[in-house]
Amino acid sequence: MLKIPEHQVAGHHASNGTLGPLIDDSGRFYKPLQGDERGSAEAAFYKQFSSNTQIPDHIRKFFPIFYGTQVMTASDGSEHPHIVLQDLTSSRLNPTIMDIKIGSRTFGHEASDAYIAKCLKRDRETTSLQLGFRISGLQVYINDESGFYKPPRDDVLKSGLDDVRFLFRRFVSSNLAPAAVPQELEANAALASNVYGGTDGILAQLLELKAWFEDQTMYHFCACSLLFMFEKRLALEGVRPNAQVKIIDFAHVTEGKGVIDHNFLGGLCSLIKFISEVLGDCEEHKTDQEGDS
Amino acid sequence: MLKIPEHQVAGHHASNGTLGPLIDDSGRFYKPLQGDERGSAEAAFYKQFSSNTQIPDHIRKFFPIFYGTQVMTASDGSEHPHIVLQDLTSSRLNPTIMDIKIGSRTFGHEASDAYIAKCLKRDRETTSLQLGFRISGLQVYINDESGFYKPPRDDVLKSGLDDVRFLFRRFVSSNLAPAAVPQELEANAALASNVYGGTDGILAQLLELKAWFEDQTMYHFCACSLLFMFEKRLALEGVRPNAQVKIIDFAHVTEGKGVIDHNFLGGLCSLIKFISEVLGDCEEHKTDQEGDS
Repeated sequence: MLKIPEHQVAGHHASNGTLGPLIDDSGRFYKPLQGDERGSAEAAFYKQFSSNTQIPDHIRKFFPIFYGTQVMTASDGSEHPHIVLQDLTSSRLNPTIMDIKIGSRTFGHEASDAYIAKCLKRDRETTSLQLGFRISGLQVYINDESGFYKPPRDDVLKSGLDDVRFLFRRFVSSNLAPAAVPQELEANAALASNVYGGTDGILAQLLELKAWFEDQTMYHFCACSLLFMFEKRLALEGVRPNAQVKIIDFAHVTEGKGVIDHNFLGGLCSLIKFISEVLGDCEEHKTDQEGDS
Repeated sequence: MLKIPEHQVAGHHASNGTLGPLIDDSGRFYKPLQGDERGSAEAAFYKQFSSNTQIPDHIRKFFPIFYGTQVMTASDGSEHPHIVLQDLTSSRLNPTIMDIKIGSRTFGHEASDAYIAKCLKRDRETTSLQLGFRISGLQVYINDESGFYKPPRDDVLKSGLDDVRFLFRRFVSSNLAPAAVPQELEANAALASNVYGGTDGILAQLLELKAWFEDQTMYHFCACSLLFMFEKRLALEGVRPNAQVKIIDFAHVTEGKGVIDHNFLGGLCSLIKFISEVLGDCEEHKTDQEGDS
């Protein structure tokens, strides 16, 4: 039983004449191969990566499990090749998700003039060049009646530095209102220590990835994204909310040729600094309150 | 008594109608202000930085001491403004020096289209885009008769990945021949553990800088260089060779605005990996020899 995934916050959707992403009941995600060389590049990456014995287990867990490729038949009988992956949200109820494209630049050093020009324009229009990453999309669970806060993709991409700071706080806020209210009321970041902090929180996972990126010289992860996910209902109850970081979208991965991926690593370090600051602010705030009581 | 510095391996030299860099007997280096906004930008950076109380001492030591600006009069009576700095090589006999421009890109995120196009072209033609840095120049002491190995600037800038690997080995080799000999004979990297290694070696200093760059959000050091310096004669005698890392050339520094300098940090991490590899190879080689004996 295949259906359209509910929790995709960025990336490609179905359009006329294509079959979009699908999920099944057994926890698999069917990602359509993009028609040009990107689709085959991503499938080739997954094949190579899944059999690469040099990837330590504590790093492999950041990547979706790869089940192969499969041709899917649409209702009109047309055939569409898909990459079959682990559905990262299948075991989650109402996941809160953020998609962050990492890197100050989204093109490889051997890209063509035209491709560089296109990517550089986008990297300058968004926060990529300034911050080393850009938020590509997010959904934050509010409650069962209101569903999710999920701003339009184009609005998210127009974020500036202050918006990004705000979104990292809002992502872990307990007081999200369904309707528009002044933003400063909506970002108490109350869940930060439960989601970003702790030995299994998002920051700890980012630091684990960072240590690998300081050393690995096999791949350059151009234009890849990190997904942050957690279950907000658990976080609100004070339970550990199953916070996870995953790395996705490998259509532009290139060979590292013995050089570290300094573009991804730099962006990752910048992201770590932003998350650390939200966490630091909240812990300072807590200490102040304890001091007052 | 002013004279022309002997040990400059990169950067601007005197040309018609200008007064080039000068040094005096008291250990000061007089750097001509570049005529356009770059000169005033660099002077402004030094002024601001030298009075910035947020710079820890263990980081300030990586920067040349700033003594102010001074107008110098040329022999034809014309006047030229200079920045007066610590002469980094004054206390060294026959210094071996490498100048490495750090960053995958050498332009800031708010640079103009024309400036970006110019820098990007250069960053693609050199190793900057691929490696996150490029070697801008070097001189390696051979002996008193032969002087220095100092390849022409344009040759150095044409280096590819393999050349860069080789230059990092040659920089710490004991067997530099004055005349051209096959390169593989000339890079035993015998001095690596004495120059790159150790608690006060170049790698330890780079790691100290890295820790600061993971945290500091005050400055973006666009198009700055790291200098590596040591005294080869001491290294050959097995004495600690006074290895030092310095950061120079601040004409394109911009405000960090609360964001880390992910471009510099990424390049620095890439450089650290290259230096670690030379060091690792040498230590492995030593262990092999010890195992054989």
